[in-house]
Amino acid sequence: MSGPVLAASVRYADDGAVEILDRRVYPFEVSWVRCATSEDVAVAIERMVTQSTGPLFAATAGMVLGAREARGDGPREAAARLRAVGARLVATRPTNNHIRDAVHAVLSATVDGDGDPSGEDPGGENPGGGRARLAGDELVAAVEAAAHAHETAYLAKNAALGEHAASLLDDGTRVLTHCWADTFLIATVRAAQAAGKRLEFVCTETRPYLQGARLTAAALVEMGYRPTLITDGMVAAALSDGLADVALTAADRVTLDGHVINKVGTLGVALAARAFGVPFYVLIDAPDPQAPTAADVVIERRDGDEVLHALGRRTAAEGVTGYYPAFDVTPPHLVTRIVTERGIYRPDGVRESLEVRESR
Amino acid sequence: MSGPVLAASVRYADDGAVEILDRRVYPFEVSWVRCATSEDVAVAIERMVTQSTGPLFAATAGMVLGAREARGDGPREAAARLRAVGARLVATRPTNNHIRDAVHAVLSATVDGDGDPSGEDPGGENPGGGRARLAGDELVAAVEAAAHAHETAYLAKNAALGEHAASLLDDGTRVLTHCWADTFLIATVRAAQAAGKRLEFVCTETRPYLQGARLTAAALVEMGYRPTLITDGMVAAALSDGLADVALTAADRVTLDGHVINKVGTLGVALAARAFGVPFYVLIDAPDPQAPTAADVVIERRDGDEVLHALGRRTAAEGVTGYYPAFDVTPPHLVTRIVTERGIYRPDGVRESLEVRESR
Repeated sequence: MSGPVLAASVRYADDGAVEILDRRVYPFEVSWVRCATSEDVAVAIERMVTQSTGPLFAATAGMVLGAREARGDGPREAAARLRAVGARLVATRPTNNHIRDAVHAVLSATVDGDGDPSGEDPGGENPGGGRARLAGDELVAAVEAAAHAHETAYLAKNAALGEHAASLLDDGTRVLTHCWADTFLIATVRAAQAAGKRLEFVCTETRPYLQGARLTAAALVEMGYRPTLITDGMVAAALSDGLADVALTAADRVTLDGHVINKVGTLGVALAARAFGVPFYVLIDAPDPQAPTAADVVIERRDGDEVLHALGRRTAAEGVTGYYPAFDVTPPHLVTRIVTERGIYRPDGVRESLEVRESR
Repeated sequence: MSGPVLAASVRYADDGAVEILDRRVYPFEVSWVRCATSEDVAVAIERMVTQSTGPLFAATAGMVLGAREARGDGPREAAARLRAVGARLVATRPTNNHIRDAVHAVLSATVDGDGDPSGEDPGGENPGGGRARLAGDELVAAVEAAAHAHETAYLAKNAALGEHAASLLDDGTRVLTHCWADTFLIATVRAAQAAGKRLEFVCTETRPYLQGARLTAAALVEMGYRPTLITDGMVAAALSDGLADVALTAADRVTLDGHVINKVGTLGVALAARAFGVPFYVLIDAPDPQAPTAADVVIERRDGDEVLHALGRRTAAEGVTGYYPAFDVTPPHLVTRIVTERGIYRPDGVRESLEVRESR
């Protein structure tokens, strides 16, 4: 798939190592972090080398490396090792569920396969481990296939999501974004472009990591736009001044009752959008069936020291303590529509998005 | 007056030049910008060497330099020159009215003195120029005295304001601030300390100039606190999480009908405070009698390029355009109380603060 560099930001080197685009410094430096082991991938995710949907592709790649690391193991040991790699990857970031879903998809298709009729060990000492007979190159091939299938399915769902999102945007719409909506935004822009719709963008810079100023802005420029950049404190002023017609962000999670968990600052965008009569649209592949409401989601608190720096340089006086909730929770009454791969939903009806899938 | 460096950030060098603390780099560098002429002072204000209440003291100093520059002029020429210096200073920043008031105070007490019974030229070709007989050293001395009187009166009013503001803060209150409330904040803290009240502070960093991370944080640390710092996008999350009990900012202007014009981001603070039941208090010496409502205030738009940098380093992808409204307008219904030197007012009653003064 051609397009912005950020559209394909996890890749394999010729020697099989995984390389992850370092989103912490992009676009000022185009630097790829080399991960020779699954542990390297986990550390890279923890260190925020990649974020947003990047961890999905990093997690599938981490599982592939884990399968290779288990090449010399017998089936049971290999399965245990692969599950441990998956648990390590899931533990890197508690709020973003792309990692959990990717790990689950790979394990289910290879060593766990719960409910799979081919299971050899139902209810035995290897619970849910129906396919724990795989080992060696066979296991590697199965994990590679499962990883690729998960990635491909995700991108296909993204394209559907983009079509739905673009249908909400009239020709000429000025869109305010926060943080970096990644493949959701790219898919939305492509769908709008395919429909011949002109769009304009206002991006928040999104401190402390500046994903808006760096990633969203760079990707939009690569796709032919000239975005307007504001600081995070300018959202209310911008909407009060009529600078944008809609606000649109991704979500890291949406609960079954329509709470939106996304990059900290989203709640302020939603409050301002509501105050000034601007629709607020949220993009997510699907609500989280494991999160009935916001209390079921762990909000990651990151190192407050990150708030005291910008691009590695100290920005704050000595003697202060930084506070850094990575995400905030926007209640459903502040959300106009939630767009999933299945369609467009009111927040209080987003659960239907899952029911459609489950009833298929 | 002892205290934070920022409490006395305009000074005279031994040779009579004016030195202005460079708030753009404080506290990382303690650098004083030397101004040999009134034009140097105007340029320094335009370039944001100082801001908040700093321009008041810069403006009085600029008028003193202007009087010295007019030392060789006759009375009429000296008066004209001093008025031109005043106009130049007022033109540097259209929204902050400290400069206008300082210039007006100095001119009224020296060369204009409208309504002053000592005027020699009422209604003549030197309109309002009752005292335009001053020149040379006499004019310099008069301007110096008027400048000093304006500064002293301002600080006395600040102390009164601080007493009123501190009366709103219970022992143990956690205060969220935005930007740098300068002498208002210092006076409030001093009054709270004198009353034996413990306070805690949460400060926004206040991009793009980082006044919160640098100036507010540094001054609070100097006064014995350990403030918590958040990015501008975290205000809603912080208030939703119960991190602060009140929100408190200065205002650059308050209109007679209670609109608050302050550093961009204040509107977002007010929206979040309202959403999460946190009182929002605004500090201002007095409402602006020349501004019946928000439409009467010019909102300064600064160079958007400043949004694309932090501490001089590029933070944004190439190809974007920055948008930088320096201030925003918070409507009265989002403001809990406005604290002036005269007392504590509901926004819709803040006009009374002036009426008290006028009736004295």
